[in-house]
Amino acid sequence: MIRATVWNEFVEEKIYPSVSSVYPDGIHVVLAQALGDELAQEVQVRTAVMQDDEHGLTDDVLAATDVLLWWSHLENDAVSDEIVARVQRRVHQGMGLLILHSAILSKVAKTLLGTSNDATGWRHGDKEHLWTILPTHPIAAGVPNPVVIPQQEMYGEPIDIPTPDELVFISNFEGGEVLRSGCAYLRGQGRIFFFAPGHEEYPVYFQPEIRRILGNAVRWAAAGLPAPARPTRTGEYPASGG
Amino acid sequence: MIRATVWNEFVEEKIYPSVSSVYPDGIHVVLAQALGDELAQEVQVRTAVMQDDEHGLTDDVLAATDVLLWWSHLENDAVSDEIVARVQRRVHQGMGLLILHSAILSKVAKTLLGTSNDATGWRHGDKEHLWTILPTHPIAAGVPNPVVIPQQEMYGEPIDIPTPDELVFISNFEGGEVLRSGCAYLRGQGRIFFFAPGHEEYPVYFQPEIRRILGNAVRWAAAGLPAPARPTRTGEYPASGG
Amino acid sequence: MIRATVWNEFVEEKIYPSVSSVYPDGIHVVLAQALGDELAQEVQVRTAVMQDDEHGLTDDVLAATDVLLWWSHLENDAVSDEIVARVQRRVHQGMGLLILHSAILSKVAKTLLGTSNDATGWRHGDKEHLWTILPTHPIAAGVPNPVVIPQQEMYGEPIDIPTPDELVFISNFEGGEVLRSGCAYLRGQGRIFFFAPGHEEYPVYFQPEIRRILGNAVRWAAAGLPAPARPTRTGEYPASGG
Amino acid sequence: MIRATVWNEFVEEKIYPSVSSVYPDGIHVVLAQALGDELAQEVQVRTAVMQDDEHGLTDDVLAATDVLLWWSHLENDAVSDEIVARVQRRVHQGMGLLILHSAILSKVAKTLLGTSNDATGWRHGDKEHLWTILPTHPIAAGVPNPVVIPQQEMYGEPIDIPTPDELVFISNFEGGEVLRSGCAYLRGQGRIFFFAPGHEEYPVYFQPEIRRILGNAVRWAAAGLPAPARPTRTGEYPASGG
Repeated sequence: MIRATVWNEFVEEKIYPSVSSVYPDGIHVVLAQALGDELAQEVQVRTAVMQDDEHGLTDDVLAATDVLLWWSHLENDAVSDEIVARVQRRVHQGMGLLILHSAILSKVAKTLLGTSNDATGWRHGDKEHLWTILPTHPIAAGVPNPVVIPQQEMYGEPIDIPTPDELVFISNFEGGEVLRSGCAYLRGQGRIFFFAPGHEEYPVYFQPEIRRILGNAVRWAAAGLPAPARPTRTGEYPASGG
Repeated sequence: MIRATVWNEFVEEKIYPSVSSVYPDGIHVVLAQALGDELAQEVQVRTAVMQDDEHGLTDDVLAATDVLLWWSHLENDAVSDEIVARVQRRVHQGMGLLILHSAILSKVAKTLLGTSNDATGWRHGDKEHLWTILPTHPIAAGVPNPVVIPQQEMYGEPIDIPTPDELVFISNFEGGEVLRSGCAYLRGQGRIFFFAPGHEEYPVYFQPEIRRILGNAVRWAAAGLPAPARPTRTGEYPASGG
Repeated sequence: MIRATVWNEFVEEKIYPSVSSVYPDGIHVVLAQALGDELAQEVQVRTAVMQDDEHGLTDDVLAATDVLLWWSHLENDAVSDEIVARVQRRVHQGMGLLILHSAILSKVAKTLLGTSNDATGWRHGDKEHLWTILPTHPIAAGVPNPVVIPQQEMYGEPIDIPTPDELVFISNFEGGEVLRSGCAYLRGQGRIFFFAPGHEEYPVYFQPEIRRILGNAVRWAAAGLPAPARPTRTGEYPASGG
Repeated sequence: MIRATVWNEFVEEKIYPSVSSVYPDGIHVVLAQALGDELAQEVQVRTAVMQDDEHGLTDDVLAATDVLLWWSHLENDAVSDEIVARVQRRVHQGMGLLILHSAILSKVAKTLLGTSNDATGWRHGDKEHLWTILPTHPIAAGVPNPVVIPQQEMYGEPIDIPTPDELVFISNFEGGEVLRSGCAYLRGQGRIFFFAPGHEEYPVYFQPEIRRILGNAVRWAAAGLPAPARPTRTGEYPASGG
């Protein structure tokens, strides 16, 4: 049983009709449903939003989370540094993390990757072709190649991220841009997946192929747990080992 | 059910007492037993040796093999080019491959990696400490860190291999050398793992921690199968996709 | 002084008007001129074609070559295995290699990479946007981002190549495809660069930005030479080192 | 002309005789001399220490620094967060950074890599063999293989760092441990090199082979500068590019 927590800043859904018409109850609710549909008995999902106490990410919640999904945009800079540090520590211990769309610019993403994560250019309403580069990667299992997303927000290369440990997807935008749109990283014991699709004004997270990818990614990210015991030796090396 | 085939050149066991005293029935038999012990119902193992017709690797055998283990040394250059090409094609289609010890200098290994695979220096009878570098990698699951191999043959760095897609183990030898001793590669749909321990004069493949690694590696390498369907488009791109 | 050799199969220029109208004297001549223009006094260029004795790649020629540029297409499978092995050995010793366009399917490229190198789909006459992913890579120095190629032949992902050691360029095609179009590999002491643009019916190698990339790539690939001395120790490790 | 700044916390040299006997004027002074000796006219070196105003790393100093060398240990956690953020920004813009020995646990290193950087075990007085894994890497140019360091402090694997973009050196310690002791990373436009040797009680930075590596690394890290212009497009993509 994978324990997933979907975190959403939950702001635009309450102020922009173009967003609330797509995600009236919040992006987190749709993401939670997607995981339930995809993973069924394999997963137990809870949600948390920025307005909750401690952003809903108490020590207890994180300790009971195997994979955290993170969606944020307008409030990227307003998230508490203490919560960011807490999430980072938990990822180092083995919690999986999915960084969704504009959350690549969140403090959580920047702190774990060490880069600015700035992309080059953006534009609304582009058609995106998402191509699988590593067809045998577990996150690509059963995913058609390409996935066509009729309307999406373009972020383009160069994007200032570290070279991924595994580059799973690359996207084409009809304006001529490309993006490394599915990037896997290992940080500490934790598996991190940046997945670029998911603009808040388009029903991207309702698309079956996208839901398949999200489900695969949660399963993949959970596989870092339970964290294998690290050797706890300090100081002198035991005679039996040397 | 993983279908594993253990291939051995099976020469030294018949001519050198220092080898037959450790592996009287051949290294392949001990490797097959190790997999049976580790993976039990998960695996079905067969063996093949160089002296068999077509080296025991007919099209039928390879088609029914999910993971091939390859041990060779003296006869590295005598293996038929046709069989090498057949193994390479099957790896590209998704068959897993474990390259064991001196088989890093086999034609199969050189053909799939594109390098000479020459190491620097060698010496018998060294104590080896095998360290897990990626504690969350499936091949390292449940493996103590380090594994101490009381007697092993040293091959040292620099070794002329491509940078691994994943570097799982690094070894220390008491003469002062190091070796990237557990290296994972993806070639086509196939997962390849080079595992350096296993000199024929020492009972390395009887050691429980080594058997655990072999079992883990077979399970990991099998996960490339069944090969996902590749798009078969040629020529014009279908209108529906563009 | 970099000694570059441009190799071309030199077939289509003699039989297809659509090719000879662009490259009347052969692609190799234009590539040689491009290097001369870009690198001036830094380079000394010779050319060789398939119809020459030993394909023009004698031991003497290769020994006097720091960087080899390879263009081929129709004759990919007709190149002599002996010459392929000779080129591979020389790359292992430190000669740089540029694999141009359809030469990704040459025996030289397949032998050094270990993969089938098959791409998915192809189409003529597409506009290509070539994006720099690693802006600080020497091959991208002074290259505008993106480079727009008005007409090019599309090869698309997934392409069955090893994960590059460095991914420098990714291309967008207007039909919706993407391609890892600038991929750097280290094999032995040799630096290899696969550069996808360059279809024989379009004047791609006349384009200033493309020439800049070719010049940069030759300079980068030459930096693997002279091959540093490899330690020549065999057998026992010297007492002073242990 | 490379402008290098050597930064040192400069604490142990003033309180421990075992350190001041090796580095009476501070490690920074010896590192500065090493660079001067190795790079001569190529480099202009200044030093800065923690006790200086703004730790000696004002905006002006950093703006005039092409490569920053960072040595720290006891005061790793006491460095000002503001200075750490300033260094990170400057690295993103293209300044090179050498992370020396225990500075792998500095805030600067953790912030740029995103990991805890904890190693496993430590011990004083070990003999270290430092092996070049990538003989053609510029940082290894002219470096004997191996370099033997008679006395060094051991930090061992597993060490919780991201998989390096390039793994240049691996070390063997006589107690049986290994360490990825020379690791190259690209973060933003900046080149980062973690080099593990350099314990404060041993004259490691006086050793000619180590000085050669430091000089090579400074030259390599400076090559990320001047930062190539990033495209400054925002919003709509220009018609000429699409």
